[in-house]
Amino acid sequence: MPEWVILPPAEQVLYMTSRNPTPQTRDIFFVSDGTGITAETLGHAVLTQFEGLDLHEHRISFVDNPDKALDALARINESFHRQGRKPVVFSTLVNPSMNAILHSANAMILDLFDSFVVPLEKELGTKSSHTVGRSHNIVDSEDYKNRIEAINYALAHDDGQSAAELQRADVILIGVSRSGKTPTSLYLAMQYGIKAANYPLIPEDFERGALPQALAPFRKKLFGLSIAPERLAEVRFERRPNSRYASLDNCRFEVEEAERLMRRGSIRWLSTTTKSIEEIAVTVLQDFLADRAS
Amino acid sequence: MPEWVILPPAEQVLYMTSRNPTPQTRDIFFVSDGTGITAETLGHAVLTQFEGLDLHEHRISFVDNPDKALDALARINESFHRQGRKPVVFSTLVNPSMNAILHSANAMILDLFDSFVVPLEKELGTKSSHTVGRSHNIVDSEDYKNRIEAINYALAHDDGQSAAELQRADVILIGVSRSGKTPTSLYLAMQYGIKAANYPLIPEDFERGALPQALAPFRKKLFGLSIAPERLAEVRFERRPNSRYASLDNCRFEVEEAERLMRRGSIRWLSTTTKSIEEIAVTVLQDFLADRAS
Repeated sequence: MPEWVILPPAEQVLYMTSRNPTPQTRDIFFVSDGTGITAETLGHAVLTQFEGLDLHEHRISFVDNPDKALDALARINESFHRQGRKPVVFSTLVNPSMNAILHSANAMILDLFDSFVVPLEKELGTKSSHTVGRSHNIVDSEDYKNRIEAINYALAHDDGQSAAELQRADVILIGVSRSGKTPTSLYLAMQYGIKAANYPLIPEDFERGALPQALAPFRKKLFGLSIAPERLAEVRFERRPNSRYASLDNCRFEVEEAERLMRRGSIRWLSTTTKSIEEIAVTVLQDFLADRAS
Repeated sequence: MPEWVILPPAEQVLYMTSRNPTPQTRDIFFVSDGTGITAETLGHAVLTQFEGLDLHEHRISFVDNPDKALDALARINESFHRQGRKPVVFSTLVNPSMNAILHSANAMILDLFDSFVVPLEKELGTKSSHTVGRSHNIVDSEDYKNRIEAINYALAHDDGQSAAELQRADVILIGVSRSGKTPTSLYLAMQYGIKAANYPLIPEDFERGALPQALAPFRKKLFGLSIAPERLAEVRFERRPNSRYASLDNCRFEVEEAERLMRRGSIRWLSTTTKSIEEIAVTVLQDFLADRAS
C-alpha cells in the first residue's frame, strides 16, 4: 500500500513509499580531483555489501578548481531534489576549499580523507601534504616507467611469441590455451609492474611428454595455470564453436596432460576455474613472488 | 639529543626518539579477505598524503578463516614489538569474527567497513550482507565476461592489426607510434570492459594527407592521442636509440602532421605528455564515452 510522504518545505519534494517497496533508488557519485579510480574502487567495495538496491553511478573526475566543485555540487543537489533521497557521494577530494563546497551538498558524503587522513595525521604525529596525490607526477616515477615497460614486455612475450629475453621475466606463466595466461600477464604488468611472459602448453608438448625446450633454463620462473575441463570447453566453445579444440574430450586430455607435466616438473600451479584475473595475479604475487613483493 | 622512552609494561619495548629524527619507519599492512586490491588502492591514496616517512608495505590477502586472521595478527604484533611503533593496517575484512581478531592487534587500524559500511547502513535503512564482497562470484558475472572479451578485443585490434570488426569498437584510439594507444586500450578493457581498438598514424598517412582509409566508416568512434615531440623522442629513443624514428626532427614532423589530420577531421584528441594511462583512460571515458558510462 503506497503512502505519500511530504518532506520538509525546504526540499519541496513529494515521494512515494510502500510497505512492499520496489528497490530503493539512489544516485551514487564518485568525486575526485584525479581520475576517480580510488573513489570508485572504494565505493564498489562498500556498495557490494548492500543488496537489492537500484543504484545509479556517476563519475565526476578531475575536480581541481572551485568551478568544477560547484558543478559537482549542482549535480548532486539536483539528484537530491529529483529523487527526494540523499545521494551517496564517495569523495577523495583533498583540497580544503573544494571539500567545503562539496560538503555543503544535500548528500551522504563518505570522505576518504576525513575518515583516514585525519586520524593518520594524529597517529603519525605529522601533517599531511593536502596535495592532489601523486598522480600528477606519476608519469615521471620509476614505478610508472616499470609498469609501462612491463606492459610492453607482456605483449612481446605473450603466448610464447618470443623466447628472447625470457631471462628478464619475473615469472613465466604456462598452461593450455585459454587457461587465463594472457589477461593475468597483462594485469601483473599494469597493476604491479611485474614482467610476466606466458607460454602455451600444446599437443606437441604432451606427445613429447616434456615442457617446451625454450623454458628449460627458466624452470624456477615457471608458474602454471590450470582450469577445469568443463569450464575450458565453455570458454573455447565461445571462440570456436563445435571444434575439436573446444570439445570436452580434448579439453580433458589437454588439462590432464598439462597437469601431469607440471607435477613432473615440480612446477607450482593453481586452478583458475573460479578465480578472477585479480585473484590469480595476487596469488602469483603472494605465493610465488612474495620475496620480491614484501 | 636522543631520549629513551619506556612504554607501558604490557608492551615491554624500549625505543628511541630524537629531536631531529631520521625518517619515521612504519610497517603498513593491507589486510583483506580477497585480493587486497581495494585495501591497497585505498592505502596508497591515503599514504601519498604523507611525505618523508620510511614505509614498508606488506600485503596479507585471502584472510578468509580464523587461522589466517591469527597469522595476520601475529605478523602485525611482531612489527609493533620490533619497531616500538604501531603499524598502520588498512583492512577490508568484513567477517565479524575475523575482524574481532584483527582489531585486537597493537596497531592503528583503518577499517573500510567500520568507516563506511556502518554509516551507510544507517543512511540506507538496510543491513549490509557482511559477505566477502562480490569477488567470489565475479567470474560468472556479465561485467567480468565483458572485461575478458574487451581484453581479447584490444589485443586483436592493437596497432591496426585488424580492421575486421572495427564496428564492434566502443572507441578507436589513433595517434603516432608510442603516443600511449596500446596501454590505454588495455586499461580501458581491463578496468571498464570498454572495447578499444587502436590504429597508428604513419608517414604514409601524412603523405596522403588523410586518415587511414579503413577508419573512414568509423569517424565518430575516433579519439586521438598526441604527445609533445620532446617526450616522444625520449620514449622512442629508449626503444631504438639514435634512429631516424626517434630523432627530435622526425618526432616533431609526425606529431605536427598527426595533429593536423585530427584537426582537419574534427577528431577529439588530447595530449598524453604528462598524463598517466589511468588519467588518459578516464578522460576518454568522461569526455567521449560519457553517455554510455553514466
